[in-house]
Amino acid sequence: MAVYTHVSAEEISAFMADYDAGEVLSFKGIAEGVENSNYILKTTEASYILTLYEKRVNPDDLPFFLGLMDHLVHKGTNCAFPVRDRAGNILKTLCGRPAALISFLEGLSINRPGPEHCQQLGQAMAGMHQAAADFDIRRENALSVAGWRELVNACAGRADEVMPGLSDILQAEMTYLEAHWPKGLPEGVIHADLFPDNVFFRGGELSGLIDYYFACNDILAYDVAISLNAWCFETDGAFNITKASRLLRGYGAVRPMTEMEIQALSVLCRGAAFRFLLSRLYDWLNQVEGALVQVKDPMEYVTKLKFHQAVTSPSEYGLDI
Amino acid sequence: MAVYTHVSAEEISAFMADYDAGEVLSFKGIAEGVENSNYILKTTEASYILTLYEKRVNPDDLPFFLGLMDHLVHKGTNCAFPVRDRAGNILKTLCGRPAALISFLEGLSINRPGPEHCQQLGQAMAGMHQAAADFDIRRENALSVAGWRELVNACAGRADEVMPGLSDILQAEMTYLEAHWPKGLPEGVIHADLFPDNVFFRGGELSGLIDYYFACNDILAYDVAISLNAWCFETDGAFNITKASRLLRGYGAVRPMTEMEIQALSVLCRGAAFRFLLSRLYDWLNQVEGALVQVKDPMEYVTKLKFHQAVTSPSEYGLDI
Repeated sequence: MAVYTHVSAEEISAFMADYDAGEVLSFKGIAEGVENSNYILKTTEASYILTLYEKRVNPDDLPFFLGLMDHLVHKGTNCAFPVRDRAGNILKTLCGRPAALISFLEGLSINRPGPEHCQQLGQAMAGMHQAAADFDIRRENALSVAGWRELVNACAGRADEVMPGLSDILQAEMTYLEAHWPKGLPEGVIHADLFPDNVFFRGGELSGLIDYYFACNDILAYDVAISLNAWCFETDGAFNITKASRLLRGYGAVRPMTEMEIQALSVLCRGAAFRFLLSRLYDWLNQVEGALVQVKDPMEYVTKLKFHQAVTSPSEYGLDI
Repeated sequence: MAVYTHVSAEEISAFMADYDAGEVLSFKGIAEGVENSNYILKTTEASYILTLYEKRVNPDDLPFFLGLMDHLVHKGTNCAFPVRDRAGNILKTLCGRPAALISFLEGLSINRPGPEHCQQLGQAMAGMHQAAADFDIRRENALSVAGWRELVNACAGRADEVMPGLSDILQAEMTYLEAHWPKGLPEGVIHADLFPDNVFFRGGELSGLIDYYFACNDILAYDVAISLNAWCFETDGAFNITKASRLLRGYGAVRPMTEMEIQALSVLCRGAAFRFLLSRLYDWLNQVEGALVQVKDPMEYVTKLKFHQAVTSPSEYGLDI
């Protein structure tokens, strides 16, 4: 939550001279984006987000991220998209960093989504999966099952500092997931981070998805599993089957899930809970004194993982089967 | 540079329901304002800044700050101003904090102002001094000469860590300023923090002054002295007499300075340099590990102080006398 690179008025004016986007009326650094520096920019034409990509983003991934947003918007998806300069470029350089001018997407993210929001999210996610089907750049998911073992090894020695017995839980779950991770399910481009703060609503209607900087190629239903974890638990840890049912119904109305996907749902949900448990645990155990980013509590995902471990039938996710 | 209080979409909607300011289309925390949490808010009507006042602001001062902005805009000054809710209130509460909805002022602050910017700043400052003349709330300047001794005492013991001999410089200057601080000069409401980042320009024209949260009653020419320090030195420490001359000419065109004010200019400039030297030195020596605010180098103001100490005539500020 910070601006890492300071851009001066003079630098912004020189940068914007490459675009046909109006005269700059104001720009302010915004406290969003864990990994990058973001400015909100108002011109005589429109509002924009100016993003400077900082160290934690691999520049080799930028053609995938920006190309995906560009592809999605051309397919009619509601999402922020990179603006082309007069020469047709979407990836530029500013203050020595890769940078892009992104369209401004109106809407507010909802802290406590209700069932109706969940249904709309399901629809929008399925629409995104379909719209990205013919996107021709690939990006492997570094945080899928093959990447988790490394995080387990990095955390296991100190996991019990967070909760006695957590290290054993991690080892057992890792073994289970490696043995049971589904194969042969439909794959494609997934968002991989569809938390409520990345979904905008306006007047109760979903207005778009933002922040594609974890997007990658993976099992489509794994994206659904991430969202079930992120949207369908109450703050007290209770699973809300009504919200899950609506999320799955919304998704299925646009892209019906196969029987194999439905049967794999609980293991995918276990994997999704495990993935966020691991990354939060790693950040928790490796907090940098005075870092600008607030570390999230990993225990939330221990509770979610336990819920999915106890699931014996997909009907427990509210599927009408 | 941070958002200290997180406001949810639900909270912002409830808050905005008190105003006749349109439907909220987006809001984002901005990385501005050292002391407060600020959001940029876009509605179907206009853009706004929503400010939540954090711990370092004394709530008793808010009627002065907000009332001053309100007064100035009614006098025709270009500045951001607090918006009234339907009941006529400008000071509200949000998330348990005092809060105000502020108009959005277009423009960019200039990193490296030129002589023309300085002249416009002088004009705008004098205009503000005149517009505030009949504002009827008072606020003493806690950071004027009477308040410096406390900072000197807090810093003197460790000042030599920053520069050998600095402690002696502080003590000698404090003694000089207490003995020579001018009396009987015209007083009124001053901005007291007119650095380039608090002055907006649009297309080369000054569009307004922002951030009145240091404003107070003090010697009017002391505001001029603060700006001479903030606007008229180059990054290598050299004084730019052309910029100073234009700043003073701009000021004098709107509110001519008296002979007493002109003669007091060098001591006022010494005081202004000393005040920012002291507050920067204090922050430098008392850095909080991991604080969100970047600490500024106090040495810049040692250089400026030395320049003013060597001044023997007001003509060295470029005054046509």
